[in-house]
Amino acid sequence: MKTESKKFLLQEKEIPEAWYNIVPDMKVKPAPMLDPATKRELKAEDLYPIFAEELAKQEMNTTDQWIEIPEEVRDMYKIWRPTPLVRAAGLEKALDTPAHIYFKNESVSPVGSHKLNSAIAQAYYCKKQGITNITTETGAGQWGAALSLAAQHFGLALAVYMVKVSYNQKPYRRSIMQTYGAEVIASPSMSTKAGRKIITDNPTCQGSLGTAISEAVELAMSTPNCKYTLGSVLNHVSLHQTVIGLEAEKQMEMAGEYPDIIIGCFGGGSNFSGISFPFLRHNLAGERNTRFIAAEPESCPKLTMGEFRYDFGDEAGYTPLIPMLTLGHEFMPANIHAGGLRYHGAGSIVSRLKKDGIIDAVDIPQLETFAAATLFARTEGIIPAPESSHAIAAAIREAKKAKEEGRQKVILFNLSGHGLIDMASYDRYFAGDLTDCKYEPAK
Amino acid sequence: MKTESKKFLLQEKEIPEAWYNIVPDMKVKPAPMLDPATKRELKAEDLYPIFAEELAKQEMNTTDQWIEIPEEVRDMYKIWRPTPLVRAAGLEKALDTPAHIYFKNESVSPVGSHKLNSAIAQAYYCKKQGITNITTETGAGQWGAALSLAAQHFGLALAVYMVKVSYNQKPYRRSIMQTYGAEVIASPSMSTKAGRKIITDNPTCQGSLGTAISEAVELAMSTPNCKYTLGSVLNHVSLHQTVIGLEAEKQMEMAGEYPDIIIGCFGGGSNFSGISFPFLRHNLAGERNTRFIAAEPESCPKLTMGEFRYDFGDEAGYTPLIPMLTLGHEFMPANIHAGGLRYHGAGSIVSRLKKDGIIDAVDIPQLETFAAATLFARTEGIIPAPESSHAIAAAIREAKKAKEEGRQKVILFNLSGHGLIDMASYDRYFAGDLTDCKYEPAK
Repeated sequence: MKTESKKFLLQEKEIPEAWYNIVPDMKVKPAPMLDPATKRELKAEDLYPIFAEELAKQEMNTTDQWIEIPEEVRDMYKIWRPTPLVRAAGLEKALDTPAHIYFKNESVSPVGSHKLNSAIAQAYYCKKQGITNITTETGAGQWGAALSLAAQHFGLALAVYMVKVSYNQKPYRRSIMQTYGAEVIASPSMSTKAGRKIITDNPTCQGSLGTAISEAVELAMSTPNCKYTLGSVLNHVSLHQTVIGLEAEKQMEMAGEYPDIIIGCFGGGSNFSGISFPFLRHNLAGERNTRFIAAEPESCPKLTMGEFRYDFGDEAGYTPLIPMLTLGHEFMPANIHAGGLRYHGAGSIVSRLKKDGIIDAVDIPQLETFAAATLFARTEGIIPAPESSHAIAAAIREAKKAKEEGRQKVILFNLSGHGLIDMASYDRYFAGDLTDCKYEPAK
Repeated sequence: MKTESKKFLLQEKEIPEAWYNIVPDMKVKPAPMLDPATKRELKAEDLYPIFAEELAKQEMNTTDQWIEIPEEVRDMYKIWRPTPLVRAAGLEKALDTPAHIYFKNESVSPVGSHKLNSAIAQAYYCKKQGITNITTETGAGQWGAALSLAAQHFGLALAVYMVKVSYNQKPYRRSIMQTYGAEVIASPSMSTKAGRKIITDNPTCQGSLGTAISEAVELAMSTPNCKYTLGSVLNHVSLHQTVIGLEAEKQMEMAGEYPDIIIGCFGGGSNFSGISFPFLRHNLAGERNTRFIAAEPESCPKLTMGEFRYDFGDEAGYTPLIPMLTLGHEFMPANIHAGGLRYHGAGSIVSRLKKDGIIDAVDIPQLETFAAATLFARTEGIIPAPESSHAIAAAIREAKKAKEEGRQKVILFNLSGHGLIDMASYDRYFAGDLTDCKYEPAK
């Protein structure tokens, strides 16, 4: 055992001062969002009824490479940022690989995941505009927990529609939101037309993300001074998450290496984009040739098996049409334990990059992710979130390949969250109750 | 909102190189442990059958002020240490107090609490001596989780006896231990004579910490190459925890202030000692006049209402006699949610310091701790463990007093752990199901 630097730490003043917007650097830009009825190209103003204006502008911004992070947001980032970059020496040893494995540890956030990076920004811009109430939906609860903390900080009232099955199965995440002062409503609920209709038709309905989105949007649209927020998929969410990669860039420099491979798990795209885009800009500028791998669940393989076309962002078809790699907005993924990755499509930027061969993707079976998670916990000490375990599994695959090839590759992955609130999933894994879930296309 | 430094961060190389042993600096030393049968004063050798020799020597060390931290232990500390010192500016603002409040954030450990500081040291010394198996008991599971990670790292097989009621009520902590590779046994169990006797007499017995200790000690004594370990109360555990205060000392210097008041919650004493002793040495040397406050639960007030005398460390009376402030080893505290503070006595060093008026203690009602925890979560973003919330409540009392007196006091407390695995307690608090639990002396 040697005493080498294990963590690479930045000072508070090194928290990035601007987010990186990749769109201006893309040779082929993502196609615009469309109005589903008229097929008209949407402008920022068209989103103002739903989103804070500044966020709508960021969503449509194709010209500014850098967007300044407001002081109030950076101030709040200081609660837990900068996050450590860690050399996974224990994992390397266990794999007996010549690869150098690094991970960016976003799990140190007080809500346990990277989601807070965008939650703070979204709450801030709503507050700045004079909004008093915000809404959102949450599945597993990571986004809802992050937004609850951010809303409390900026003095916004928050209503979170939580998919009913999760509301009952994941009481800890619900309690976290309530502790931060949010109102959490099991969806479908009687508080909206959309919810009432579903309950009336099917009183025992356990809800879905699509229904929860519909309820959150309806409440935002029908409440004075209220906006809706979203935790992934959209461009402005990816933008806010680039603080991850921007910090990691400086930290890899401290480590004296540059990544050959960068990996993030993939649900809607926010954490993958966050770790990747700042490094990807050097590929786009022709200065580097890093490989980027999005690690998605085998049961929900939109990047490797999806169709590239316009589709709705939600199940019910309330959102604008988004140009995306999609399994179809009505696709219901298997009930895997990485709840945050159960989404039918990829955001428009990542979809474009994948279509153009600029990034790669791999599909990982559920059991492989839990095996990877257990090895990681035992060698690096941190129990990862089931979502993040997809990135770990992909990193392990690459480290094994490096061993076979006898090459000293440098691998960087994003540990997007810890799993301390997901222990029930680990229980089921150890009990042998989990299975792999193959992709089955919607009928 | 101003952009001030919020966190004070050290580099890895600033992790302390030695633990601080307070005993040489105490004018009145703690009395020795005694053999319960013969009342003979115990030497380190007398503890060798149960504890690793190096730990037994540390337990009895009254001469060396500094004990070097082995490289292998410092190396593993690097997983999460140094921990941040944080200025609680949000809490100060909410309290409108002139006091400056700082907290040492030990919750960033991968198991969520300070317990890992000693778990790593204990596992290391066992491994170094050639021990292959270790045992321990755990109530709420914080210590068991920490030791599981440490044992896995050093390649030791670990059996954790977990009080049966917790085993069933706190499945997340059990899963964490299993994920790290430990064997977790609900106590009472059929695996020991002590357990079998209790089960035979009372088949539905839900267990107690006393029974779990008996089982863990029995297994250690009856298994070749096996030792027992303990997570609090003992001198060597407090010794290992002094990394907390030693780091905080450097960080308060970075902040340009020195604490007037230092607060830790109090169960057996390990986190209170850890934050306090390094600062206390300056009081003992006559250089400073800091006030030290141990915050204990109203329901288990050994420091304020206990008797100073020899008593057993465990309920069943298997341990040596320890000179302590005690409510009596048969005292059963109320079933409060800060499970880690439900212990009848205080370690011998703290007991001596309290008796000699060198440290203070306060008793905090349960509801006040949850109100403090909620305010802290909403202003500082971190949901604290119910145990740590006692320190927060005491800090809030002092900050309010500072406001009344119009004095700009500097308050430092130890945030010993986060509460993300204790959300069920918060649920009950918000539902109005919790009550205060007054102390009722044993009959």
